[in-house]
Amino acid sequence: MTINTVALDADDTLWHNESIFHLTQDNYVGLLKDYGEPDHMKARLLEVEIKNLKLYGYGVKSFTLSMIETAIDLTRGAVPAKTIAEILNLGRAMLEHPVEPLPGVAETLEALKDRYRLVMVTKGDLMNQEQKLARSGLGDYFQAIEIVSEKDANTYRRIVARQGIRPEATVMIGNSMKSDVLPALEAGLWGIHIPYHITWAHEHAEPPSDSPRFAKLETIRELPGWLSQTHG
Amino acid sequence: MTINTVALDADDTLWHNESIFHLTQDNYVGLLKDYGEPDHMKARLLEVEIKNLKLYGYGVKSFTLSMIETAIDLTRGAVPAKTIAEILNLGRAMLEHPVEPLPGVAETLEALKDRYRLVMVTKGDLMNQEQKLARSGLGDYFQAIEIVSEKDANTYRRIVARQGIRPEATVMIGNSMKSDVLPALEAGLWGIHIPYHITWAHEHAEPPSDSPRFAKLETIRELPGWLSQTHG
Repeated sequence: MTINTVALDADDTLWHNESIFHLTQDNYVGLLKDYGEPDHMKARLLEVEIKNLKLYGYGVKSFTLSMIETAIDLTRGAVPAKTIAEILNLGRAMLEHPVEPLPGVAETLEALKDRYRLVMVTKGDLMNQEQKLARSGLGDYFQAIEIVSEKDANTYRRIVARQGIRPEATVMIGNSMKSDVLPALEAGLWGIHIPYHITWAHEHAEPPSDSPRFAKLETIRELPGWLSQTHG
Repeated sequence: MTINTVALDADDTLWHNESIFHLTQDNYVGLLKDYGEPDHMKARLLEVEIKNLKLYGYGVKSFTLSMIETAIDLTRGAVPAKTIAEILNLGRAMLEHPVEPLPGVAETLEALKDRYRLVMVTKGDLMNQEQKLARSGLGDYFQAIEIVSEKDANTYRRIVARQGIRPEATVMIGNSMKSDVLPALEAGLWGIHIPYHITWAHEHAEPPSDSPRFAKLETIRELPGWLSQTHG
């Protein structure tokens, strides 16, 4: 069987994202520089983010709430409200940030769009992800958009069922081994890992030890070549 | 043509929601009682919420961020961080709140489920709405769940296209004239208004002046009777 559906993660696969979180974190520890050491504050923020994931889910609003909670905790309630207003501004700036497609993305989607059904599959804030797709200029390439609260094997099973596609004819592409590749493989899809230069600590995972449906590419530009050589 | 698909709003149609926002607002103005008059603070909060809708979207996380922003504004930066920590707790309590189906909802869905395709259509936080549906015990009644960032006529057009259903064979039911009824009618669906005892100021709208596909029911218990009498 030939692959006819290409599902793509968005953040750090289609456009820069983690780099904006990193920059925001640098500004955040700068705001709180009187209260502690940057690496300690970043580690504490990561703990709070992960603790809050089950309740808040992914995305910028969750991250903003976690930044505020961490600032209050770290300063034992001494952080001034004006600093918290600055943290709200950091979050707002992330939501309004220009969306910059990664190199090669537009050309690759253009090359694939007539031969494959393209589906975007992403976590995060519903409205923010829709706005980012619109701002990216990539919206017209996709026949379907799936914004989900978590990416596990059941998520991918639901998506293939809802889209009426066959898992063995579908490849999922993303920068996260943990969210994009491993659960897609588990659900019977093909999985391609294209690393981004930064990975959020929570998304780290080892590659699959042995899967005929797994590949790693250096850049999305290699995708059309891989697809034309692959017959499942 | 007979109606074969019943689409239902969730918050304040299937379960209590606005009442929890109201209770939280009362607690919120209580936290800030040294800084101003409750009605003024609530009015200011509503302004901030509406200003933030375009960036934050709907849901509890957005509301929590707006509560924090309003507290800082109203107090001109004098609100202590410990009060902001209390506001974070108010938001968390909303996300964890038990989900209580409205009277008659479970029986009505039970009565309809074998004869109609049931679809839930809701705004709000992706993860929170999924969790609420799970906690409500109503999840198994629905053949599809649509969590959307906005409910306008295009939203309903996209949903009927994606679900492969016919607008003229679909009725949308909800407590919001503005989000559930008017845009559904505009997209060619039937629209039924079932008021909840509180309506968020932002959701107020006048009923349609003259539409053969509009109805108003007092309670969801009247829905099976309405459906059996209606042939589009």
